[in-house]
Amino acid sequence: MTHWIAGEWIAGQGDAMQSASPYDGEVIWQGDSATPAQVESAVTAARTAFLSWKTLTFSQREAVVLAFANKLKERAEQIAEVIAQETGKPLWETRTEAAAMAGKVAISIRAYHERTGEQQREANGNQIVLRHRPLGVMAVFGPYNFPGHLPNGHIVPSLLAGNTVVFKPSDLTPLTGEFVMRLWQEAGLPAGVINLVQGGKETGVALAQAKGIDGLLFTGSANTGHILHRQFAGQPDKMLALEMGGNNPMVISQHYGELDAAVYTILQSAFISAGQRCTCARRLYVPEGASGDALLDKLISATQAIAIDEPFAEPAPFMGPQISVQAAEHILAAQESLLSLGAKSLLAAKSLGHAFVTPAILDVTAIDDLPDEEYFGPILQVIRYQTLEQAVELANDTRYGLSAGLISTDEGEWAYFVEHIRAGIVNRNRQLTGASGDAPFGGPGASGNLRPSAYYAADYCAYPMASMEGSEPLLPATLSPGLTL
Amino acid sequence: MTHWIAGEWIAGQGDAMQSASPYDGEVIWQGDSATPAQVESAVTAARTAFLSWKTLTFSQREAVVLAFANKLKERAEQIAEVIAQETGKPLWETRTEAAAMAGKVAISIRAYHERTGEQQREANGNQIVLRHRPLGVMAVFGPYNFPGHLPNGHIVPSLLAGNTVVFKPSDLTPLTGEFVMRLWQEAGLPAGVINLVQGGKETGVALAQAKGIDGLLFTGSANTGHILHRQFAGQPDKMLALEMGGNNPMVISQHYGELDAAVYTILQSAFISAGQRCTCARRLYVPEGASGDALLDKLISATQAIAIDEPFAEPAPFMGPQISVQAAEHILAAQESLLSLGAKSLLAAKSLGHAFVTPAILDVTAIDDLPDEEYFGPILQVIRYQTLEQAVELANDTRYGLSAGLISTDEGEWAYFVEHIRAGIVNRNRQLTGASGDAPFGGPGASGNLRPSAYYAADYCAYPMASMEGSEPLLPATLSPGLTL
Repeated sequence: MTHWIAGEWIAGQGDAMQSASPYDGEVIWQGDSATPAQVESAVTAARTAFLSWKTLTFSQREAVVLAFANKLKERAEQIAEVIAQETGKPLWETRTEAAAMAGKVAISIRAYHERTGEQQREANGNQIVLRHRPLGVMAVFGPYNFPGHLPNGHIVPSLLAGNTVVFKPSDLTPLTGEFVMRLWQEAGLPAGVINLVQGGKETGVALAQAKGIDGLLFTGSANTGHILHRQFAGQPDKMLALEMGGNNPMVISQHYGELDAAVYTILQSAFISAGQRCTCARRLYVPEGASGDALLDKLISATQAIAIDEPFAEPAPFMGPQISVQAAEHILAAQESLLSLGAKSLLAAKSLGHAFVTPAILDVTAIDDLPDEEYFGPILQVIRYQTLEQAVELANDTRYGLSAGLISTDEGEWAYFVEHIRAGIVNRNRQLTGASGDAPFGGPGASGNLRPSAYYAADYCAYPMASMEGSEPLLPATLSPGLTL
Repeated sequence: MTHWIAGEWIAGQGDAMQSASPYDGEVIWQGDSATPAQVESAVTAARTAFLSWKTLTFSQREAVVLAFANKLKERAEQIAEVIAQETGKPLWETRTEAAAMAGKVAISIRAYHERTGEQQREANGNQIVLRHRPLGVMAVFGPYNFPGHLPNGHIVPSLLAGNTVVFKPSDLTPLTGEFVMRLWQEAGLPAGVINLVQGGKETGVALAQAKGIDGLLFTGSANTGHILHRQFAGQPDKMLALEMGGNNPMVISQHYGELDAAVYTILQSAFISAGQRCTCARRLYVPEGASGDALLDKLISATQAIAIDEPFAEPAPFMGPQISVQAAEHILAAQESLLSLGAKSLLAAKSLGHAFVTPAILDVTAIDDLPDEEYFGPILQVIRYQTLEQAVELANDTRYGLSAGLISTDEGEWAYFVEHIRAGIVNRNRQLTGASGDAPFGGPGASGNLRPSAYYAADYCAYPMASMEGSEPLLPATLSPGLTL
């Protein structure tokens, strides 16, 4: 009973699917995917539920969402364990994901009021009122790297605004998707307000093409995102919010401050979540010369020392496995490809069995035409540079624009960097993978479609309704020219 | 010398075009349209200018825009005359358009700071900073009905945010486009920051397809807007903001208050600008029975009494002509079409020569399958209804969703209406064609792509850049698990 449609748990009628822990291959979830007909029934359930959900007061919807937040807090450790089992991320890290899910509720309530909600003022005898209205049924496509937190960041604002949802988790993380849905059920969410469908490509295509959806909120690869954008051509009325990848540059200045602190910030940027965050540093610009050499030496030795292990191991590892054996193989293949183009290996990625790979550091300075690809794992490409201007120009030479960072103690360098770099998240002396909860999230170029999420998710969950109101029609003392009554 | 590219006025190399006053046919502007190669040079000029324009401080850009606002105020009467000449709108009305253009500058500066701009706070030793960055080169497509005000509402926010512009006016209003550009030139706008290209479809297609644009801001028909949306498929990184039409309902309650005031509000909603506003009321829901009959009688007689004349006539008319003879013929053809479907003529539209037509009021209650078309002129379709719930359901039976209105003195009816109606502008007892300057503008469905304009134009002219900043990298007292340095 792996699909939740119209408040009922039902079996899938499509292809068999399963989820295996990437660190030991143990199957932790099995089910059958949703057929297109089942997707359609989920969309219909969401449309039906929309009619009543949208007419609840905000406080009524808020109460359900707050009850869900309480469930998230009560069950935080269990959520962290499920995510760790399914993704292989270390437990300490999945605990932060579980906490972020609960934290998202309060942030989304604040964002609802600040970015949308209702405002009223009086001018010339008119009430000028700004309200916001839900769009309808939102299809939410979740990614595997934050299988709890990222779909939650679409679902919570969608529901607060009065939309209903059909949620398809990544087919690599169905267990997490199902677990969270059961918390919504326990929180008393009315039937059909969220509907869960599990599946891979066929299920996803059916959901994206469903006539009955009013929007699609996607977090995933640039490739799939661009396909979705083509599918939505000629349907301007449907909200499409795409959060895609990045090929994120991190520039290390000559003035990088304390060596260990700089190296620590790089490690946190490149290798956290085993390199499987869309904001991870992929390209590291290091100055030529002795100070750059020293930083690289330390970076290599510290990367070699990274503890890699199963999520529940003691002592705790920094890195777990990749999401799947296939993903791990993809990282090793990417390393081979870069080496064949002329990269010099500074630290070689190696398989450690199952989906584990160790981090790679590659000096790609000699590659004239560096592929502008997102390698979604622990591969860090180093480019040596001569001037900061040159580094920024190289850093901007990407079709993506998600995150970028500068390590520098020099104010002038930072002023230059923040003025010239093209990215949506731009950090100074802080890990690229850190973002503030009350900030928008997203970037230009191939990283998205300029529908920023996180704090700004409220924007794509509602449309504004502007009103001029008076208690009765008025006949002015002087009519418009050319009118008589 | 009808194109303004890289700060130079040059001749077009494409097809000859001209603009004729719709009320007497006099040719008031002639030129040759821009070829695709000339469009490309305009885009290149805008790209080049972007590099320096975006690095100016906001105050520097603001100063130029304020100088433009002063030109608008100094030359307000001339602008009003040019627009009246080219559109045939009465001079009293084009004066309000000229004033709205100047007013847009202060509103846009406020919106820039409120919706975008820069915010900063400190948290846990980090500076949390939110900046906004321009997108690049914006193509602006202007409509003919407000040939000054509507493109101005895209151009001013674009420039304030640091974008540069290629502007193509409607091929029905090239004179107004050119006139306003000369004011920008007089205001000291640097070369290439706005580039003007004139032309019809070929010029427009070349501009929409130019690789060098980062966004397209469109006001016009739903048909063209949907074509543009298809053209932009697979390019999620390009900002496309579509402001399209509406098939706007106005519901008259049994409790419509004072008869003359209600009728006056309907006239202002349906026939202002000779019905050529995208917010105009197209469908009028009138209760069956005596009070509805009385309202209709008065509406018909007052509509018959509307003064129609040339824009500079004394006494001033309420309505001028349609924008062109072709548009006038289109309105008469629409009337024929509705009559053939079973409409009953309550007041027949008639040609008065040149592009003049008189207003039509048609009772379309008997048409089972009323076409969901926007007739962009003075045709008002009347539907008699029995209950308010029924009226709201019929009102919502449109693929559009731009504006909607209720005339009612009953608070409960208004509460029901505003809760159930689906539109972006929803007025009570006020003309549908009125909107507040500090409100967003736009609607769901086929009326746009959920990129609201007016006060929210700031949003689609910039992307957010979120930063966490520290003056130096930090090594925490306790490292993340699994890391050693």
